[in-house]
Amino acid sequence: MARVIGSVVSTQKDPSLVGKKLMIVRPIDSDQKEIRFEQIASDTVNAGIGDNVLVTRGAGARRADGDSQRDAADVNDCTIVGIIDRFDK
Amino acid sequence: MARVIGSVVSTQKDPSLVGKKLMIVRPIDSDQKEIRFEQIASDTVNAGIGDNVLVTRGAGARRADGDSQRDAADVNDCTIVGIIDRFDK
Amino acid sequence: MARVIGSVVSTQKDPSLVGKKLMIVRPIDSDQKEIRFEQIASDTVNAGIGDNVLVTRGAGARRADGDSQRDAADVNDCTIVGIIDRFDK
Amino acid sequence: MARVIGSVVSTQKDPSLVGKKLMIVRPIDSDQKEIRFEQIASDTVNAGIGDNVLVTRGAGARRADGDSQRDAADVNDCTIVGIIDRFDK
Amino acid sequence: MARVIGSVVSTQKDPSLVGKKLMIVRPIDSDQKEIRFEQIASDTVNAGIGDNVLVTRGAGARRADGDSQRDAADVNDCTIVGIIDRFDK
Repeated sequence: MARVIGSVVSTQKDPSLVGKKLMIVRPIDSDQKEIRFEQIASDTVNAGIGDNVLVTRGAGARRADGDSQRDAADVNDCTIVGIIDRFDK
Repeated sequence: MARVIGSVVSTQKDPSLVGKKLMIVRPIDSDQKEIRFEQIASDTVNAGIGDNVLVTRGAGARRADGDSQRDAADVNDCTIVGIIDRFDK
Repeated sequence: MARVIGSVVSTQKDPSLVGKKLMIVRPIDSDQKEIRFEQIASDTVNAGIGDNVLVTRGAGARRADGDSQRDAADVNDCTIVGIIDRFDK
Repeated sequence: MARVIGSVVSTQKDPSLVGKKLMIVRPIDSDQKEIRFEQIASDTVNAGIGDNVLVTRGAGARRADGDSQRDAADVNDCTIVGIIDRFDK
Repeated sequence: MARVIGSVVSTQKDPSLVGKKLMIVRPIDSDQKEIRFEQIASDTVNAGIGDNVLVTRGAGARRADGDSQRDAADVNDCTIVGIIDRFDK
């Protein structure tokens, strides 16, 4: 779980990252309290600033459906894969 | 080891996550003390709120038997794979 | 490095975990001081309570020799792969 | 996100690392505050000291375009894959 | 980055670890300050006690050139892949 807090602009980067939205996400818990440090995640679900999102890391991050670069040269290791509507506790 | 404390509702998400139960789990130790921060884990063993569970991460999370999406596009990186009956120490 | 401090009993679990000994291990340093939090590790070397052991994580955990389930559905992500006799410093 | 703060010289090393620039990077957040500890990352985008960069870890690190050693013996696990021009928040 | 501080002796272990030197390493930063906790790493570059070394983790650890066991049963997840001569900052 994380909250989208911004994005980064990067001109000089690996070809597999061209055309991807690179968002700054801050991990949160289900009380929406910020935990741990910020990370960069590519976005495949059109998440906006302030959205609470599902994030996947590692090989899973390169399998996301909206990822047009799903190939052997994809360097991505963190992807937003869902928007959280509600926490049920 | 983790305890199930809730679930999340997400409408807009990666196709590989559709139909999966996404639970909020809190890592615990064998004294059932909460350690570290909450995570989201998909559930393959019908775990309920309050259950102590076994959780697997990374590639192992995409191999769980109850996972109907065991395919190349599965973005899941954390799965509940067992319910803990008892700690023996 | 970790010390074996107990085990867990789990009836309802992924088929790939059936028949495996699931031990509770506590990471230690070479002074045998406890560091970090407990984890669950499957055992392939007949480690006993109190043994100091070598632990491997991730894909390496699914390759251990004593692992009768070395197949595509193995969900294991942490395995005891050796018993430490002595620290030389 | 990380800032490049230096480099390391290593003569005796794995063949897959020969010819790679090995930079010392310090993780930062989007306020450019230093977080966590330093790491070594190979460089594929000609990053310089003081640059804020995108870093990928694990298997993604071995897929970077500028990596001339993209083969089965590549031991690299951390790579600089982009230079950050700007944080938008 | 890590410093080699000792080794472990283990008789009862996974076959893929037989014949490997298993070193105790302590992560350091470029000021040679100790950071985080000790780990066990197999050695492929003949590192000695006191050497500052490059360490790789995960799948990369099983690809190191000096690793005579580069096969599907290798359980190793942390390897020393270079000796650091100098930090340039």
